[in-house]
Amino acid sequence: MIDRLAILAPGLLGGSVARAARDYGFAREIVIWARRPETRASLAQQSWCDRSADTPGSAVEGATLVVIASPVDSIAPLAAQVAPNLADRAIVTDVGSVKAAICRDAGDSVARLSQGRAEFVGSHPMAGSEKTGWENGSAALFESRTCFVTPTSGNRTDAALAVEAFWSSLGGRTVRVAPDEHDRIVAHISHLPQLLASTLAAFLARRHPEWGTYAGNGLRDTTRIAASDPELWRTIYTANRTEVLSALRGWRAEVAEAERALEAGDFNTVAALMARGRDFRKKL
Amino acid sequence: MIDRLAILAPGLLGGSVARAARDYGFAREIVIWARRPETRASLAQQSWCDRSADTPGSAVEGATLVVIASPVDSIAPLAAQVAPNLADRAIVTDVGSVKAAICRDAGDSVARLSQGRAEFVGSHPMAGSEKTGWENGSAALFESRTCFVTPTSGNRTDAALAVEAFWSSLGGRTVRVAPDEHDRIVAHISHLPQLLASTLAAFLARRHPEWGTYAGNGLRDTTRIAASDPELWRTIYTANRTEVLSALRGWRAEVAEAERALEAGDFNTVAALMARGRDFRKKL
Repeated sequence: MIDRLAILAPGLLGGSVARAARDYGFAREIVIWARRPETRASLAQQSWCDRSADTPGSAVEGATLVVIASPVDSIAPLAAQVAPNLADRAIVTDVGSVKAAICRDAGDSVARLSQGRAEFVGSHPMAGSEKTGWENGSAALFESRTCFVTPTSGNRTDAALAVEAFWSSLGGRTVRVAPDEHDRIVAHISHLPQLLASTLAAFLARRHPEWGTYAGNGLRDTTRIAASDPELWRTIYTANRTEVLSALRGWRAEVAEAERALEAGDFNTVAALMARGRDFRKKL
Repeated sequence: MIDRLAILAPGLLGGSVARAARDYGFAREIVIWARRPETRASLAQQSWCDRSADTPGSAVEGATLVVIASPVDSIAPLAAQVAPNLADRAIVTDVGSVKAAICRDAGDSVARLSQGRAEFVGSHPMAGSEKTGWENGSAALFESRTCFVTPTSGNRTDAALAVEAFWSSLGGRTVRVAPDEHDRIVAHISHLPQLLASTLAAFLARRHPEWGTYAGNGLRDTTRIAASDPELWRTIYTANRTEVLSALRGWRAEVAEAERALEAGDFNTVAALMARGRDFRKKL
């Protein structure tokens, strides 16, 4: 158990971190800062928020661990903003879906602006949902979920271990990878599926919106994540554009093979492709 | 309530029809024929199977309604095989995922070989699952599900109404469309999503099989139907190749728009596409 955990800009993931940290007894004190005063007032009334801070700087004072839970594009700026207020040997982490740019920028600014007292270690718990907002958080959100931890050569070994211990204590299954390898992985297993679900739903919306009423579970499952927040995804695609494009091109080659086989009436190739997909899916 | 319901070649859907027909009291007697003698022996022991017939011809004798639940490619052949044994004013329907070719072929052969005594009206309950086999059937499978009924100009009005009444009494929500319109609709809302899920899973299997272990709910939902039986889908794609290719090309245009926008760094277009997809998904 640590003395103080600070959470900045909680959404679904930040609200879940706070609940899980309380339930699992990870921190004696949980301090939260949110951008809007109304949100701060609401947070102060939650059993899993001991104090709602008025500024990010005051929230992180004396905290052993700081979790920045804001959208991807404001993680590094917030890290830089709070760095001067960080305690000795404090660790800052985040929950952003993209890691390379964040780990580079936040890593540099936390080390420099804290004058070497503190450091940044990137995290990404694979525990999103199409829901948003701290109100929808859940203490069980990280249960058995992959939580990527992405240290760089600038991190102390014990800092990476501390962040891994944090996610483990919240129920997560930690996976340590380099930031750029992380971005390549999630481009394939998260950002590409999102793009496929969204383009399929957008295609049907444009061409045949009325057919949605006939849909079975297949379409419902396949497009479930298309209900996600476009503004959240805008920041993710902005930050991981290159890897997403690369994954998209790789997938397009697979579709082209299926399309050629259908055109040629080569249903053995179609069935073989489906069998390969089935074997992969059954292992998930 | 009808006197006798015959079900031929039950899989998941046929086994569910029998259970639902029993639970909802649709037929006094349920007679089932299956291809394999072992299956016939097992079926004879079910509370929802009053008699297990040794041949399709003997199964349909005296039946008011016959449901052919075999894979798509053997529906019309089975319809032709049983036609000479059909009772006066008997109606034959099916559960096949593709309708134009089946309604044409089975429609012709049932009318001709029954010497006008009986007729075929196509059906397609949108109640599949990645599970297969009559053992996995459920009386609740059709509850609130779209059940397409696809009569042609060769059908009596009351025959189409009787088939609609059948699905309604099993809990389904009937939708009447022409067979070719049905095939165009399901190419978009069922066969195309299947292809998306299968190509995505096949792509990851080929390139990065180990990354599946990190997957979150997004990938799991998006690829759930990739676990379906490739041999079942082979027959569907064979029968609906043209419409599936047309739907695939339409969706590819949407993907190409997203790809161009990502390449150009035009994230407003990406977000607008995602917002359109979200609005569609939220209405499903």
